[in-house]
Amino acid sequence: MPKVRAAIAGGSGYTGGELLRLLLFHPEVEVAQVTSESEAGQPVVRTHPNLRKSTGLTFCSLSDLAPCDALFLCLPHGETMGRVQALTGLSERVIDLSADFRLNNPEDYERWYRTKHPCPGRLAEFVYGLPELHRDELRTARLVSSGGCNATVVILALHPLVKHGLAGGLGIVVEVKAGSSESGRRPTESSHHPERSRCVRSYRPTGHRHAAEIVQELRLEGRLPLYLSATAVDLVRGILATAHVFPDRAVSEKEIWNAYRAEYGREPFIRIVKERSGPYRYPEPKIVMGTNFCDIGFEADEAGRRIVVMAAIDNLMKGAAGQAVQAFNIMHGFDERAGLEFPGLHPV
Amino acid sequence: MPKVRAAIAGGSGYTGGELLRLLLFHPEVEVAQVTSESEAGQPVVRTHPNLRKSTGLTFCSLSDLAPCDALFLCLPHGETMGRVQALTGLSERVIDLSADFRLNNPEDYERWYRTKHPCPGRLAEFVYGLPELHRDELRTARLVSSGGCNATVVILALHPLVKHGLAGGLGIVVEVKAGSSESGRRPTESSHHPERSRCVRSYRPTGHRHAAEIVQELRLEGRLPLYLSATAVDLVRGILATAHVFPDRAVSEKEIWNAYRAEYGREPFIRIVKERSGPYRYPEPKIVMGTNFCDIGFEADEAGRRIVVMAAIDNLMKGAAGQAVQAFNIMHGFDERAGLEFPGLHPV
Amino acid sequence: MPKVRAAIAGGSGYTGGELLRLLLFHPEVEVAQVTSESEAGQPVVRTHPNLRKSTGLTFCSLSDLAPCDALFLCLPHGETMGRVQALTGLSERVIDLSADFRLNNPEDYERWYRTKHPCPGRLAEFVYGLPELHRDELRTARLVSSGGCNATVVILALHPLVKHGLAGGLGIVVEVKAGSSESGRRPTESSHHPERSRCVRSYRPTGHRHAAEIVQELRLEGRLPLYLSATAVDLVRGILATAHVFPDRAVSEKEIWNAYRAEYGREPFIRIVKERSGPYRYPEPKIVMGTNFCDIGFEADEAGRRIVVMAAIDNLMKGAAGQAVQAFNIMHGFDERAGLEFPGLHPV
Amino acid sequence: MPKVRAAIAGGSGYTGGELLRLLLFHPEVEVAQVTSESEAGQPVVRTHPNLRKSTGLTFCSLSDLAPCDALFLCLPHGETMGRVQALTGLSERVIDLSADFRLNNPEDYERWYRTKHPCPGRLAEFVYGLPELHRDELRTARLVSSGGCNATVVILALHPLVKHGLAGGLGIVVEVKAGSSESGRRPTESSHHPERSRCVRSYRPTGHRHAAEIVQELRLEGRLPLYLSATAVDLVRGILATAHVFPDRAVSEKEIWNAYRAEYGREPFIRIVKERSGPYRYPEPKIVMGTNFCDIGFEADEAGRRIVVMAAIDNLMKGAAGQAVQAFNIMHGFDERAGLEFPGLHPV
Repeated sequence: MPKVRAAIAGGSGYTGGELLRLLLFHPEVEVAQVTSESEAGQPVVRTHPNLRKSTGLTFCSLSDLAPCDALFLCLPHGETMGRVQALTGLSERVIDLSADFRLNNPEDYERWYRTKHPCPGRLAEFVYGLPELHRDELRTARLVSSGGCNATVVILALHPLVKHGLAGGLGIVVEVKAGSSESGRRPTESSHHPERSRCVRSYRPTGHRHAAEIVQELRLEGRLPLYLSATAVDLVRGILATAHVFPDRAVSEKEIWNAYRAEYGREPFIRIVKERSGPYRYPEPKIVMGTNFCDIGFEADEAGRRIVVMAAIDNLMKGAAGQAVQAFNIMHGFDERAGLEFPGLHPV
Repeated sequence: MPKVRAAIAGGSGYTGGELLRLLLFHPEVEVAQVTSESEAGQPVVRTHPNLRKSTGLTFCSLSDLAPCDALFLCLPHGETMGRVQALTGLSERVIDLSADFRLNNPEDYERWYRTKHPCPGRLAEFVYGLPELHRDELRTARLVSSGGCNATVVILALHPLVKHGLAGGLGIVVEVKAGSSESGRRPTESSHHPERSRCVRSYRPTGHRHAAEIVQELRLEGRLPLYLSATAVDLVRGILATAHVFPDRAVSEKEIWNAYRAEYGREPFIRIVKERSGPYRYPEPKIVMGTNFCDIGFEADEAGRRIVVMAAIDNLMKGAAGQAVQAFNIMHGFDERAGLEFPGLHPV
Repeated sequence: MPKVRAAIAGGSGYTGGELLRLLLFHPEVEVAQVTSESEAGQPVVRTHPNLRKSTGLTFCSLSDLAPCDALFLCLPHGETMGRVQALTGLSERVIDLSADFRLNNPEDYERWYRTKHPCPGRLAEFVYGLPELHRDELRTARLVSSGGCNATVVILALHPLVKHGLAGGLGIVVEVKAGSSESGRRPTESSHHPERSRCVRSYRPTGHRHAAEIVQELRLEGRLPLYLSATAVDLVRGILATAHVFPDRAVSEKEIWNAYRAEYGREPFIRIVKERSGPYRYPEPKIVMGTNFCDIGFEADEAGRRIVVMAAIDNLMKGAAGQAVQAFNIMHGFDERAGLEFPGLHPV
Repeated sequence: MPKVRAAIAGGSGYTGGELLRLLLFHPEVEVAQVTSESEAGQPVVRTHPNLRKSTGLTFCSLSDLAPCDALFLCLPHGETMGRVQALTGLSERVIDLSADFRLNNPEDYERWYRTKHPCPGRLAEFVYGLPELHRDELRTARLVSSGGCNATVVILALHPLVKHGLAGGLGIVVEVKAGSSESGRRPTESSHHPERSRCVRSYRPTGHRHAAEIVQELRLEGRLPLYLSATAVDLVRGILATAHVFPDRAVSEKEIWNAYRAEYGREPFIRIVKERSGPYRYPEPKIVMGTNFCDIGFEADEAGRRIVVMAAIDNLMKGAAGQAVQAFNIMHGFDERAGLEFPGLHPV
């Protein structure tokens, strides 16, 4: 069977580079083109040195993009909105990794992104690309919008509790601890190594945009307040989300186990991590680095009135490129794990 | 005026070493003795290499401890309880840095430390050594119990909100992110560098013992639930506490400012950090490393229904040795800042 | 074709875990058994948490090891020597990752390891498992001894210069900068995170044992002194070796290029890295983390009288498990890259 | 006695900030002015957050600089040369921390800095500000040029061996491992956290400019080749220099001890570190972080034909601001340690 000819628009960023790494080794894919306006004409390995000896591709300009079988869009937020007509015309299947088509409600763009969406009528065409919640829709989807990294890990952490009525009504407090690759490849004063090294930095105590996706996907609006904060730590890759959930009644850990098993027992990329001893009793981002896994653990307090859920992902993988490839596999009917089998490193 | 002759019992641990560093350079102090059972007879600089060329002291055994003017106890938790009679007989003023006399209620030791306190009748003799809450009592105290590091930063973060009625009644969720020196100097599988490096590790999602001190000092019992979690990050020194507080009504940032200013406006070691731009808009542990400062910042959400408070300390300083020296200064009528003037480093 | 049934003796250490990771995903291998005396009966994923959901294997005891097609020995140094008869009887092909059969000359064990080798007569049966130097012998080898991590990176860095007469006669100075996983999984005072974090620590300024292998493989004895030093840095995985070579005459970078191209132009796991701009102009351990690559770069000084060679590997991969699998592939006639195709991560 | 009124030109960089930290707490100094063109009018604590609550100073423009008793110049390399007449007219004593007046020979500026020095006739007026080599000249100096950080640590490491005839004639190989603060506060692609984190990066294998100062101060020209390389590691502050020295004859460690004791036995800021056990047997940058110490250790190989010298400093302290304050103290007849007594932290 001929391979799927895939292209990446916006391939010089960290997400684009990660996607390229995955697609180059995907058994069903041939990478046709990778675009970058700043690096057009240059070998991709100058920008992504890990790929030396793995590819001879050079970047081309977006304007040189030819029709293909699958198009991944890794353009900066706000860029895809404006040219969606042209881009979606190039390929039968399109996966957008930006925020431009994640929210169903155009008003949410005004509230969270302070921007008026130029084509609100097309929002409904995009499936939110989280396989654990939208697998069936993905099988037939033509257009997919891949979720935000922090949103993805929080949605996966909370979905079983919300669905099984264990999330109560008081509110959910979530703190994500995130690495520096989340902010992309442009150097800033905050990302300067002497300033960013060893930081534990509250960069978004309130008002994080990814809250909009979480509320949408978990259908919390009007039901359950979500309180999200984000803290930068001295990691390059990885997010740990810690969520505090207050059920309406005392719950046992067995009930919680049941909820997670029911939802995720057959998920290829979710692992429930909860051990009695050893350093790795709960999820940790470093163990999932480079992988598509979302590790999830939980602990109920003595009284069963608070559940603490911990979930870890690699923000560039399950939080971006890996998730997109997983959706791509589903859209094409491939084994969902194709190209995503790397199990992570230890120690690391 | 003659200097205060001070001794340290249990001087080979990280807290004891930090105390030694402070006392060696304290203008009013002469260090008389430092004990260590494992290192007795050895130069202290073998254990604390930063003090090379600063002292010629050698460790002695606890059994060789002579009477002195001020005695600092840095023995492992549980050790002081059993020999408190002998130890407090050696010195007019004693500051215990262990957990053995922090809690007023003997039953709390059974609940949180799974141990029956051997001399519950003496608990009331110890003043909880946090100057910001107990300065007047400290002026005349003979016996002081210095608070836990995580407890200290959380109490300082929340005290103004609780006191000024801004903490509501639903509960307070606090997550502390802490460095590896908190666990002391004994190597374990968890502290092994290949395992501990780059970790973001939930080591105590529920049930952290320091909750007992926080509830006691903020008088939360029966009023306001405290939900405390602790996560280890890739730091050696430092804690960032992030607290989520839900006032009963919408509050403005001005009201919050007023509460913090009222309580801490004249505190020598508390700095309110809240800026509009730059990498250091909020408190960060690395900026207070080696100092006795507790930096505190806050942000209210748009609706004024959630307050996020962030507070940073060096766990070995304001969280242990620095706090103890501050209490010592008050007990002796010295300038509260004596020996504690190091302002921290940047960049670091 | 049936898969090769492979077993690992000593599978709970870092090298054994890495080997297990590789073999579980190797297309031609079925992992039959993994031994650990301390963890016998326990699931391997308790020790190697990255492999959760990738295997249901449990550790068995060495005494339960059954005959197999290929046996990898990851026992502590000194353990294999004593039981080599029994172990090599279990399998047609054996690859030893310890130091026990690396040196050809029994006297070198007395000099460098302060131990008398118990079976000096068998040393000659083992092929030194570095494909770049011994590929032809490996094709037919039954017994292979895999090189030390520091030795491997230094040999690969220097081999072309020595072979092509560019290494002069004065001596070669090499400094390796190495991560903490090199020292294995047993916690020590030096490996305790508060002590090891941010270290730049000369742990072996002179007398490093791996010098013996380098001298042997490059045939330097009596020709060219080797001056090796080792410094620990704040990495978990990775080594950068920096070698200073003094040719007998002025050499051009073109000559150096030619030597490296001649030796390594067709090597699947060696990349020559030398760029004019960007952060990654020369080899870096973090770019090869998790991979089997050895990246090598060089720079001649203005006068052409000093050549600085830089080489980077992942000590657990090309320095241990990856190298062993590469040798295994050659021994079995498989594609040399089978199971070793992971290209590394960026950023990381 | 009135305090010395000191000013800092170029106070928004890392070196200027460190100098400000030292001078604010110096017992004999009053900080009169601090200049910054980009931050003029802004509080200095916005740029140097560690100094919050320690000073109310604001930056002024260089053009507003008034006459003072001591002027520290922290302008970018090349800036001071052009305005030296005006700047040296403002103060009786001037200490320049840039490279502009370090080299005695104007031709060295053309060779190493590719620039023609605009006032070569004034080079001889500046004393090279290293107290260990030029203490007597500093006592009466009006103009001082403070050495480069890498040069300082290498000169201090080698001076006793060169002076005592133990350095041989073959050449000295030195590799410095350095932190990110060396490159200043301007963000670049290389300093971007995702790229710089965990790096072990050869940024200057040959041709490092600081070689010129080392050759000059140790008078190596025509006598002994110096081979200097520099590697960036994942530190913010700190340098470890490892030097390989080849004496003409076999030397004992006792002879080496004698050389170091003879030169440095009474130096307040040099510590010889050489222990038989423990993690800190040799110098380490993290132990001297924030201090003015240069820790030096050494090891001779078995044959006594190679000496490995290791030396650690904080590049912003002994390598820049601390060294400048030490020179300032000597110039003014103060205790050489005034304002420089911080002993460093452990663990850190």
